[in-house]
Formats: sequence, C-alpha cells, structure tokens
Amino acid sequence: MSWEGRNIISIDEFSKEDFYRVLKNSEKMIDLLDKGTPLNVLQGKLMSSLFFEPSTRTRLSFHAAMKRLGGKIIGFSDPRTSSRKKGETTSDTIKMASAYSDVIVIRHPNPGAAKLAAESAEVPVINGGDGSNQHPTQTLLDLVTIQQERPPSSSDSNIDGCKVAFVGDLKYGRTVHSLCTALKNFDTSFKFIAPEELEMPKKYKEGTDYEETNELELSDADVVYVTRIQKERFPRPSEYERLKGTYVINENVMNELKDDAIVMHPLPRINEIKSTVDSDPRAVYFKQAFYGVPTRMALLAMVTGALEEGELI
Amino acid sequence: MSWEGRNIISIDEFSKEDFYRVLKNSEKMIDLLDKGTPLNVLQGKLMSSLFFEPSTRTRLSFHAAMKRLGGKIIGFSDPRTSSRKKGETTSDTIKMASAYSDVIVIRHPNPGAAKLAAESAEVPVINGGDGSNQHPTQTLLDLVTIQQERPPSSSDSNIDGCKVAFVGDLKYGRTVHSLCTALKNFDTSFKFIAPEELEMPKKYKEGTDYEETNELELSDADVVYVTRIQKERFPRPSEYERLKGTYVINENVMNELKDDAIVMHPLPRINEIKSTVDSDPRAVYFKQAFYGVPTRMALLAMVTGALEEGELI
Amino acid sequence: MSWEGRNIISIDEFSKEDFYRVLKNSEKMIDLLDKGTPLNVLQGKLMSSLFFEPSTRTRLSFHAAMKRLGGKIIGFSDPRTSSRKKGETTSDTIKMASAYSDVIVIRHPNPGAAKLAAESAEVPVINGGDGSNQHPTQTLLDLVTIQQERPPSSSDSNIDGCKVAFVGDLKYGRTVHSLCTALKNFDTSFKFIAPEELEMPKKYKEGTDYEETNELELSDADVVYVTRIQKERFPRPSEYERLKGTYVINENVMNELKDDAIVMHPLPRINEIKSTVDSDPRAVYFKQAFYGVPTRMALLAMVTGALEEGELI
Repeated sequence: MSWEGRNIISIDEFSKEDFYRVLKNSEKMIDLLDKGTPLNVLQGKLMSSLFFEPSTRTRLSFHAAMKRLGGKIIGFSDPRTSSRKKGETTSDTIKMASAYSDVIVIRHPNPGAAKLAAESAEVPVINGGDGSNQHPTQTLLDLVTIQQERPPSSSDSNIDGCKVAFVGDLKYGRTVHSLCTALKNFDTSFKFIAPEELEMPKKYKEGTDYEETNELELSDADVVYVTRIQKERFPRPSEYERLKGTYVINENVMNELKDDAIVMHPLPRINEIKSTVDSDPRAVYFKQAFYGVPTRMALLAMVTGALEEGELI
Repeated sequence: MSWEGRNIISIDEFSKEDFYRVLKNSEKMIDLLDKGTPLNVLQGKLMSSLFFEPSTRTRLSFHAAMKRLGGKIIGFSDPRTSSRKKGETTSDTIKMASAYSDVIVIRHPNPGAAKLAAESAEVPVINGGDGSNQHPTQTLLDLVTIQQERPPSSSDSNIDGCKVAFVGDLKYGRTVHSLCTALKNFDTSFKFIAPEELEMPKKYKEGTDYEETNELELSDADVVYVTRIQKERFPRPSEYERLKGTYVINENVMNELKDDAIVMHPLPRINEIKSTVDSDPRAVYFKQAFYGVPTRMALLAMVTGALEEGELI
Repeated sequence: MSWEGRNIISIDEFSKEDFYRVLKNSEKMIDLLDKGTPLNVLQGKLMSSLFFEPSTRTRLSFHAAMKRLGGKIIGFSDPRTSSRKKGETTSDTIKMASAYSDVIVIRHPNPGAAKLAAESAEVPVINGGDGSNQHPTQTLLDLVTIQQERPPSSSDSNIDGCKVAFVGDLKYGRTVHSLCTALKNFDTSFKFIAPEELEMPKKYKEGTDYEETNELELSDADVVYVTRIQKERFPRPSEYERLKGTYVINENVMNELKDDAIVMHPLPRINEIKSTVDSDPRAVYFKQAFYGVPTRMALLAMVTGALEEGELI
C-alpha cells in the first residue's frame, strides 16, 4: 500500500505493519547516508516548515532530511515573524502553505493543531509536535534507534525481547507515553522508574508486562529511556529540589548496566545524564538524534510518493 | 524589450504592454507548475531576501518562486537579526546584499525604501512592499488571478469588461489603490463600497467609470475585492464597533452574487469573509495566494534574464 | 597537505604557507564567480549555520559561499529560536549539528566557544566570530582584499611592501588585532592612529616596524584600515563626544591619500567614513565585503575536501 499523500499525525494511527515499514525504509536511508551519495529524489519538491514554536532539534533534522533528499524548504522558525500576529488562523496559514508547497511539517503549541492542519491542507502534513498531544516522528526515530543499536535478533526486529526502562517524569512526558504505546506492537516488557508524583498513568500500563518502582535499579534493562524532570511540574520547589538528583545517570549507574544495554534520551538533556557518560558506547543519545534524519527522510520520501515498495523512484 | 536588470519598484512604472507581458509569462509559469517538472533556469543564482519587517505570505511565496526555478536564497526575515541594530543604513545593507547575490527582494516599513535600495544595488531589486507606499507584486498577482479565474473572453484579456467592486477600507488600503491604478489599463468599471470614513480617495476615482456606495450590494459585480477594516483607523472605538460587522461576506451575500463572479482578498483575512464561504467555487482567495508563486516566478525569471521573449533560457 | 577535516578556529594557527594557500584558493574562487558558472562541488553537502548571536554580514556571506558551491544549509540565526532557552549546553547543540551535517559554522558571544565546538564535533568547525576572541575568516578576507586591490607586485604577494595604517579603536578592536597578527607573516610596516585611550596594545606592536600617532595623517599609507569608535568604550560620554569626529574619512582626507592607496573597513560603518567617499575608486570596503564570499568558498571547499592542491574535486 502506498503512503503517498498520507498524513503523519499521531502514533495511534500506526499499525504493526506500518512500524515495520518505517524501520525498514529508515534503514535504507541510513545506508544511503553512510555511502554519502548525493540524492535527488525530492529535486524540485518544496517542504513548508511551519514552526509555531521554536524547536531546534526537530526543525534541523527535518531540514537535514529534506535537503539530503535533494528537496528545498520554505517556512518560518518563529511565530513572531508570521502572520499570526495579524490574527490569521492556523487553518488559513496552512491553506497558504498548501498552495505553495508539496508537503508540510508543522510544530505547534496547541494539542490537535496538526490534525486541524491536515484537514486544511491538500498536501501531506507531518506532525512535528503539537503541544502535550503527539510527536510521532520522535517515537519513530526512537524505534529506529532501538532497532539499529540493539544486538541483531533472530526475531522480526531487534526490539522484540527487550525490557525497556523508562526513567524520570513518566506522568507528563509526551515522549514516553508515545513510545510506550508504540512498543505494545512489539514483544517488550517495561520498567517504570519515577517518583511517586510523576508515575506512569494507568492507561499506558494497561495490557503490558511491567514493573513499577521509584528506585533507579537498571541491571535487568536492555533499553534505558531517560527524560528530564521539570521544575514547573512540582507545586512546591522543595519537592523538586528533593528529587532532582535522584534519577541521574552517572558512571556508577552505568557500571550496573548490562554490557549490551543502551541509554537513550530525547534531548535536550540538562543534568539527567552526566556528560562523563557520553563516551560510554552504551550511551546512544547522540546517535538517536542522528537517526532523526534518516527516519524523517524515509517519512518524507514515503508521503511524497518518492519511496514505494522500498524503492526510491 | 528585455527586462533583464529591471527593478520592480512601483506599479506606476508599468505600461499596458508591461501588464500583458506579466500576465502571459505568469500563465507560462502556471503551466510549468501544473506539469510538475523540476525547473533549473535559475540554478546557481542567489536571491537576497531582505525582510526588514515580517510578512509570511509575501516572503514564503517569493521563496517558493525562487526555489521552484532552481535558485537559492540568502537573507533575513526579522530585522532584529540584522545589522540594523548596529546602526547600519539600509543603503549599506543593500550594497552588501548586492555584492553577494544576483537579485534582491526587499520588504521595508518605510515608504520609498525600495527605490532607495534600487539606487544602491548593482543587481535588480524587487519591491516586496515598502510601508504605505507600494506592493507591486501583490497587484500583479491580483491581475493574474482575475485573468485566470474569470471566464475566457474574446477581448485581449479576461479582465476587460469586468465590473470590479472594492469592499472595506478604501481610504488607507495600499492594495486597493494599486490594483485600481493598474486596472485603468484595462476596460473595467468600478464600484467602491466603504463606510463614509473610509471612502476611496478622489485621485483613484478620477478618470474611471465608477459608482460609490456604503451598501454591500454586489449583484452586478464580476470581481469582489474585499479588504480588512482595521480598528486602528478609527479615532473612536465605538465607530469601529458600529461598522465592523457591516462589510462581511457570508453565505447570504454569496447568494446575491453572479454565478461567474469571483471573490478576492489579499489575505490574511480576519472576519471580513466567513470561513463557511471558503468552499464556494467563487471564493478564489486561496487560489489568489497560490498565483503569487507563478507571478513572482515570472518576475524573477524576467529581471534575471532567464525568461526572454516568453522563453526560458 | 590536505586541509580536509581541519578546523578554522584562530588566526594564530595559520602558518605563512597557510595564508598563501588561502590567498591562492580565494583567487581561484573569484575567477569562478566572475565567470558565473554554477558550481556543484558541494552538492549533497550540508553546512550547519549556528548563530548564537546575530550577524548579518558574516552569516549571509557564509550562506552565499556554501550555496555558490552547490551546498545546502541548516541552522538558526537567533538564539531565541534554539534549544539554549531550554538550558542545553553549547557542546550538546554542536554534537547534534555534527550528527546532521558535514561542516559547522559557529558564531557565539563567548570567547573560546569555537574551540569548544571543535572539540565536540566530528566534522570541521569554522569560527564565525567568538566574542572578543577571534574572527579568523574576517582576517583572511581582509588579506584577500589587500592582495586583490593593491597593484601587482614582483614580490610573493601584493601585500608585501605595504605600509598599513590602522585608524580608530585599536585597543578593543578584535579585527585590527587579528589582521596585525596575520600581517607579521608578510613584509609590511604599520602606522597606528588612535586616541590615547584607545591605543594599540603593546603585544601587537612588538616585533613590528611601526609608527604611532593620534593625528589622522595618511599621506604615506598604502592601506588604510578604519574601525568604528564605540561610545560604550568610554567611561565618560564627554570623552566620546570630544573624539568621535576626529577620525573620520571624508573627501579632504581622501585628497591627501596616495593614488594607489586603498581604504578598508570591516563594516558596518556608522560615521567613520562619509558616504560621499564611497564612489572614490580607492574606497574598497564594499569590494572587501564581496571578498568574504570567495574567501569563505575557498575555506569551505578546503575543509570538506572538495579543493585539494588548488583543484576542485
């Protein structure tokens, strides 16, 4: 089934087969990037990059992806330079971008903005994060990272069989909720490590094989997914101060880890992972950032019809 | 006559033949965009995009135009990131851009800035709007829209024979003044619909076949050109409140319109046209936004010498 | 010796041979720009343009350089749209950019930031100015300007034999310090013209053939390098007011100059050079701005391995 014209709005729309297809096509893009051959499959195509709120990492990796495929970009990185200040609706801005370009990437602070955009556009829309709601390409690059960085498996994917430990703010973290949801399509078990105030909500735990603790005990984890604990989540600053040092990955923690475990983080990290850990080969968060490029290349090529049946056309 | 090296500063510099040439070359670009063939006539060429004030629509459609032709862009979208804050004159900034690139697009809050830029530059300058003064490419895309969206005519253009109704703020609207001026080169009549406080100035009416009213009566109009009424134009807020609901295009108004009439708006619109009207085939304002791309493609190709005698070279 | 993978951080790292190589390769780029042939040696390559503080001239000329070579760019021009506001370290931002692109240009307000960036990146880093510390590409384009704009010499370079007069703020001016340091690799003498409060520091004068004065006497100068005197350098505003009119290049000053002397300025200029002087053929500061493009083209091509032994590959 062709993905030409498909919108990428929510991870909830992805079937198991969809996930496998993204893993496979992203791997193809990784190979092409490794070879360093200039690609021109999106030559003459324009991507609208509409960032209604700043986001360096997501924006730059979408731009790198489009340009690595030979495409070009129009857009804005800052709502203050857009027509919004004149009172234009998001829907009208999207209609304009749709008239100018072949694919739209939108980042917006309001939950649901990406879905609204897709309804207004006549070209495919990719959600680059809509507030607390969804950030599907982050989840897909997380899956690609596990697939690429975990040892080769005899199963359908290298993700199968993993025990994935989520660490940090599991209550509010959009990233961990989405990844947890996506991983239900694979044969994984979970360990949720969070302070009581920031526990994983029940709906994400349901139907999964999981443990829950507030101890940073990682010796049985295959994948450690760390997130930031944000001060603004706590009603009392004293609570934040008490907890902020608790879930920090340092060299001692790394010493407890399995030899083939991997440590991931959506970045930016502040103090949750010490920079002294960066040189450990199990610390894959910068590789994870890199995988954002081939993953988004795959998605851009698929929704514009340039990648069909695993072949660039 | 070649347009290579020509500056596009003011609509007042355009002869009747000039308008026809832009209409014809824009149509050529529309055809090329429809076919979807990647163009490379401006390959290796650089456009400086100097936006001394924000403008999403104009900026993005100039960028789309340059990139659709295979060209590249340098520039800024926000004066806060430019050398202006160090006290550099606009003239010096233009001289720099002229040294770096092959064509300059300038948007500036000060009337006359585009003319000044053209005097400082050694490459062609296109005015992307200089304050209350001129925005010639908006007027040209408006003409292209009428030409494309009105029924085919046996006259020299589809613009001839039209009764054009201007609605809203006709006193301060740069857009309507320019379009009215340009339309004097065609066989058109006018209907000026505005509150008393915002009537069309005498100099634009002179020498034209026009009616004037403050009733939103559109049954005889072929083209309805709607503009925003801005609160800041009124000394007393109560006056604005009294008037703001008066000139609104809704479904009832559309029911009165001719079957082949078209409704235009330079966008962004706020409440002057209800979104329920968007799906009416006579509502062509988003198509109008699209025509900004082929119109600007034609202009960029003409002033850089890539389009001569109607042929891309 | 190949420069592929080399970082361009400080002018202090440049040997005499290095300077000659940049002069030669920049001349090659000037020739190619003159011919106007579209280049594609950096096709498929991505440059990260990371401007942690605004700088129009440096940013636009790096962008022009990369695009003239057929390359593409990702990045930001304004720290407010970057992850810094979330507290990410510069080092982590660089690691991200290094994962996404083939070469990094960084501009940063903090001295030493470029060196730190080079340590964090796995791709070459070019310093586009790090606070009061270094701005090596400015110095290189200054040398290229002297080489190109001074009369042909029988010496190894047209720089040899020149008396270079530095005018203005010689105490705090990063630009004059760097250029003075670089010129020690050539056979030049110096004249330092500054108010007492803003004299050239001793360490730059040491080992050179120089005169020092606070009189604007330029009749024996071959190269006049003018800089801005900034109000904020003076503890008392009255001191600034007394001095600001003293070192101004106007037509009278030009009349005293040698026929083949050249007047340079890193720009932006405010009042240090009157605009009435711009049309004098000895006023080369806008040509100097232009030379920023071929100089940066040469550097980008060299560090990415696209220019070896003086040949584009």
